[in-house]
Order: sequence, then C-alpha cells, then structure tokens
Amino acid sequence: MLNFNPGPSILPAEALEEIRRNFMSFGGMSILEISHRSKEFENVLEDAKALFVELAVIPKNYHILFLQGGASLQFAMVPMNLMEKCADYSLTGYWSKKALKEAKLFGEANIPFSSENSAFSRTPKPAEISLSQKSSYLHITSNNTIYGTQYREFPETGDIPLVADMSSDILSRKIDVSKFGLIYAGAQKNLGPAGTTVVIIRDDLLKREYRKLPTMLKYSIHAESNSLYNTPPVFAVYAMSYVLKWIKKSGGIDAIEKINREKADTLYKTIDSSNLYCGTAEKSSRSSMNVTFRLKNTALENRFLDEAKKAEMAGLKGHREIGGIRASIYNAFPLDGVKKLAEFMKEFERKI
Amino acid sequence: MLNFNPGPSILPAEALEEIRRNFMSFGGMSILEISHRSKEFENVLEDAKALFVELAVIPKNYHILFLQGGASLQFAMVPMNLMEKCADYSLTGYWSKKALKEAKLFGEANIPFSSENSAFSRTPKPAEISLSQKSSYLHITSNNTIYGTQYREFPETGDIPLVADMSSDILSRKIDVSKFGLIYAGAQKNLGPAGTTVVIIRDDLLKREYRKLPTMLKYSIHAESNSLYNTPPVFAVYAMSYVLKWIKKSGGIDAIEKINREKADTLYKTIDSSNLYCGTAEKSSRSSMNVTFRLKNTALENRFLDEAKKAEMAGLKGHREIGGIRASIYNAFPLDGVKKLAEFMKEFERKI
Repeated sequence: MLNFNPGPSILPAEALEEIRRNFMSFGGMSILEISHRSKEFENVLEDAKALFVELAVIPKNYHILFLQGGASLQFAMVPMNLMEKCADYSLTGYWSKKALKEAKLFGEANIPFSSENSAFSRTPKPAEISLSQKSSYLHITSNNTIYGTQYREFPETGDIPLVADMSSDILSRKIDVSKFGLIYAGAQKNLGPAGTTVVIIRDDLLKREYRKLPTMLKYSIHAESNSLYNTPPVFAVYAMSYVLKWIKKSGGIDAIEKINREKADTLYKTIDSSNLYCGTAEKSSRSSMNVTFRLKNTALENRFLDEAKKAEMAGLKGHREIGGIRASIYNAFPLDGVKKLAEFMKEFERKI
Repeated sequence: MLNFNPGPSILPAEALEEIRRNFMSFGGMSILEISHRSKEFENVLEDAKALFVELAVIPKNYHILFLQGGASLQFAMVPMNLMEKCADYSLTGYWSKKALKEAKLFGEANIPFSSENSAFSRTPKPAEISLSQKSSYLHITSNNTIYGTQYREFPETGDIPLVADMSSDILSRKIDVSKFGLIYAGAQKNLGPAGTTVVIIRDDLLKREYRKLPTMLKYSIHAESNSLYNTPPVFAVYAMSYVLKWIKKSGGIDAIEKINREKADTLYKTIDSSNLYCGTAEKSSRSSMNVTFRLKNTALENRFLDEAKKAEMAGLKGHREIGGIRASIYNAFPLDGVKKLAEFMKEFERKI
C-alpha cells in the first residue's frame, strides 16, 4: 500500500525494521521499560540530538528540545514564553490561524500578511511583510499541508525573531537555522511517529520572562534539564533517532532535498500538462511536501479516490476543510511511488 | 534482568510480544504510519477506552482522555481548569509538593495535611483532613513512589471534588471511581510506555471555566473531541491497549490486587523479620507498589545495590532525593521476581 497520509505518515522501511529489531535490546529490557535516566536512554537522546544538529546544521547558540503536545501546544507556548505585548502572525492557512488564536490570549496579535482572500493559495514574498513596532516575533507556518503551499524564501526580520512552525517540512530542505529565533515541529511527518515535538530555540530567547508560567510550559526549564525535566516520550525519541540515521545514510539534507524536488516536480508536471487536473497553489508557492489539486470536474474526485485506493494508494483525500486531492510526499515517500501516482493520474485522464 | 525500575518500568512480556508482533499489521503499514483519524486507529482508541472503563469500573458520567505531558502537565491543568479561588493539597511527598507549586500560580492553595515533618512517612487518615471553605477540590497523590506510602482509605470530601494523581498505582487495586472528581495518571508505571497520560474526569467538572485557557490545556476540548483534538500519541495508546488486555486476561483488577498484595507482603515480611532492614514508611501507610527501606548500617547500601545488580536485579536504588533502597513492583512485576529479591535480602543479611 502506498501511504500518502498527511501525518502521521510513511516512515522509512529501513528505520521501521531497526526500530522493531532493537525493540528488546536494552540490557534484557525493551525500550518501553528502561528508565529515562538510564545510560541507555541517555545514549538514545544524545544520538538523536547530535544527528539533528549535524543534519540541520544547528549553530552552537541554540538548544534542541524534545517535548510533547505537538504543534498545537507550541501554538500556546510560543506566545506564553516569547510575547511581551504584541507579535506578528503571517496567515497562510488553517494551522497559522490556529496559532494566531492562541496568541490572542496573551497579547495583541497583528497580521502583516494574509492570503485568506485567495483561499490561502500562496505564501508572501519577503517584501510583502512589514512588522509592527515592538513586535516580539514574527510567526510563520513554513509549509501549509492543507493548501499545499510553502515558503520558498523566508521574511527578513532584522532584530525581531522569526518563529516557524516547520511541522510538515523540517529536514526536507536546507535552511539557514541562524535566521530563526525558534523552530518547532511535531514529529509525525518528517521525523518519526506522533508523540514528540522538536523545538530549536536560540539561547537569548530562553531568557525572556514576561509572565508567570506553569513549569512544564517554560522553554528554559526544558533547556536546563536537557529535555529530562519530566519523563520524556522515550519510544518516540528512540524511533526518531532511527529516522534521523536514515536521513544521514541517504546522503543528508542535500540529497533528500534533491529527491524531494524531483518527486514534487514529477507531480506538478503531470498536473500542468493535463486538461483534467488543476493545482490549487500559486506556482511560486507550491509545496514540495503536499501536492494539492482538484479535478476540473470535481464530481469525478470521488471516483479518482476510489480507483486510487483500488490501485493500492491510500491517504490521497484532501483535508476535510477543503476537499480535493492531496498527495503528501514527505521525506520517506519513495520516488517510485510518486511515479506510480503520476502514471495513475495520466491513465485516469485517458480513461474518462 | 529483573526490572525494579520506578518508571518507566517493567511491562508484561506477553504485551511486549504482541506490541512487537503487530507492529506492521495495519493494512500494510506500521502502527507508526497510520492516520490518527483512520478506522484502524479508531479501533485501537475505542478498544483502550472500553477496556479501561471495564477494568476500572468507570461510571457513565465520566470521560476518559488520553493526553500528553505526563503528570507534570496535569499539575498545571488541574488548577487551570478546576480552581476558582482556592483548593486544598494534601502533602505526602515530592510529587504532591510539585503539584502544589503549580496550583499556587492560579490561586490560594491550602494544605490540610502534611507529613513533611516526619519525612513523608505516612498518608493521612480520612479524619485528619478538613477542607477550606470554598475549596474547589482536594488534591491527593494516591501512591508516593519516593517515600513508599499509599492511601489505604481515601478522604471523604462531600460535595468538594476529590482529585487524585494515581500515576503509580492506577489499576493496581480496586477503587470506587465515583468518589473522585478527577483521576490522572502518567502511563509509564502500570499502564504502558511513557508518552500518554490518562485523565478520568466527571462530566460536571468539564463545565468549569474560571479563566481563559490555551485550547490544548482545556479538558472540555479533549472530551468533546474524544482525545482527537490534535494528533494523539498513537503508539503509546496502542501499546497501552495491550497492557490493558493483559490485565483483563490476568483476571482483572481483583486478581491483580491480590497478587500485588502478596508481592508487597513478601517484601514487608522480609524487612520486618530482619535485623538489617528497616522500612521507611509507617506500617499503616505502606505502599503495595514501591517498597522502600534502608539498611540499618547505611554504609552497606551501596554494596547491597552492587550485589543485587550482579544477581541480575536492576533499578533498586532509592530516588536521588532520599537514597536508600526502593523495590518498585508494579502490576507487571512477577511474584517470582519478588521472591528472588526476598531470598537475596535474606542471603545478604546472613553473609554480612
């Protein structure tokens, strides 16, 4: 079965095999049974951290944290920790709107850009964004899973920290981490199974303290305690470490980015050269992770999805908010599978 | 290796085998790759809920939620959701103090009972607790892992909801859920791997709304969305479902409680009949989950731990806050293993 699920989603077969093979290999115990303060788990955690730092080229003045609660909890933790009085939120879809909603609980959230009027069909160009005075940060969603858009260039924010939800495109392409104040990502698309959230935070931001917060919601606490303030999601970190090893073995981010580009181009070319399919995102904002399109005759979409399922392709239905078709082709999704979908699309068009 | 870890801790061998065996059995995908909104995961979630309701005999006017963040996040969520102006906290150890600290951020936290002056050697009798006027709830820690104490009887709180952190003794003994307003438990002791937190909440408490809260921290949101407001920790819930199946197969809570009693009695008898070992908890408060003791000559404790390790017994070191010895013997810990420790203790005493 080809797994086009938008998340949780396909993981590298090789990583799954190793996760399963080493499941019981912790001194006579399972990874599910060891203490989070054991030497064994320390090795797992340090491995995962070191691989992340290497793959994403994270500078020394950043902490990397493995938390829980997904991006949804980060929507609240970001303003709780970083917003003094106001912050800017670039609105490019469902998830950035959710982030905005939480920010409003803690101060004034301004909207320097929104593509809502054009059905979130694009991300802004850097020049389109001008920040509010005294803004504590600019928040963006780097890839928009539902609308199939992605920032190709990031806004220039000067001294104002850039905060990015990279849940759906982290480690899928080369980025300059030093341009960001904070990056967060739920693991369940490009990094591993659901259950852990990666936060990469620049050290100076750990010093911000604008309000009294519950201990568990302070970035500084998790940074000081190396993600061991409380029991971390041991298995999720363990599983992620094998996905990171697979990325490294596959040639690192440069190689992954090249294949991701080829995968996405294969589908976009199929769309653009057809009379049946129609991409929903503006070309300059197209995502390499989620390829979204409609059938010009939308009544045919259910048939398309049914036949795709019969051809062993799962997860292609668009998000319940907007419908249509969405092919999620994260890092672990193979090029061969993308070619199979492209062939299927052409064949479907010929047939009808 | 006998696993006396205090948590994450030993899980039933049979459950581990099934978790591993079915790891790839989700329509050609792994449990790590399926959507949390798939039929497959719906079955996992409903299975886990139904088993929990059956085993713990949860009345119909309660919701059961599978969240993230461990008991540590519950320390904050409980007062955020349930405390109007003040609440009562019974102090019986390290973890109840941590819960108290978070509550103080949201109102007045009173202390109707504390055993801190006697090194947390006991839990209160029901008559020892009288609640503050207008208290929003009484919070207790039903089992204190570090000090080896446990509530044998629960306080009577009348109309004031009783809230219990049962992280370390949930499903280890029969309790009357209807006496509680809210029960929470990190999974990593009696329920499964680290990564999910169970919350059992009485429906009327879902209506409390005393302050504006981030969406992810509202019990009502998770109850309305059947723990699917955001991506839940899929694997942790899956693994828990096998542990719950094992409890049911073992005869349910009655059978488990009987064995737990026998396991604990075996160790307490060994302690009480020796001239070397000395229990740290008062007899009437002794825990059936964590048996804590010292050697009268404390200088011998390191030797005891070293020799135990050589005899394939791991995790017996007391918590870093207080030292000594702690045998954590949660549900999955076998009676045979407890007998082996008792024999080892007797042999060690004979030898020295």
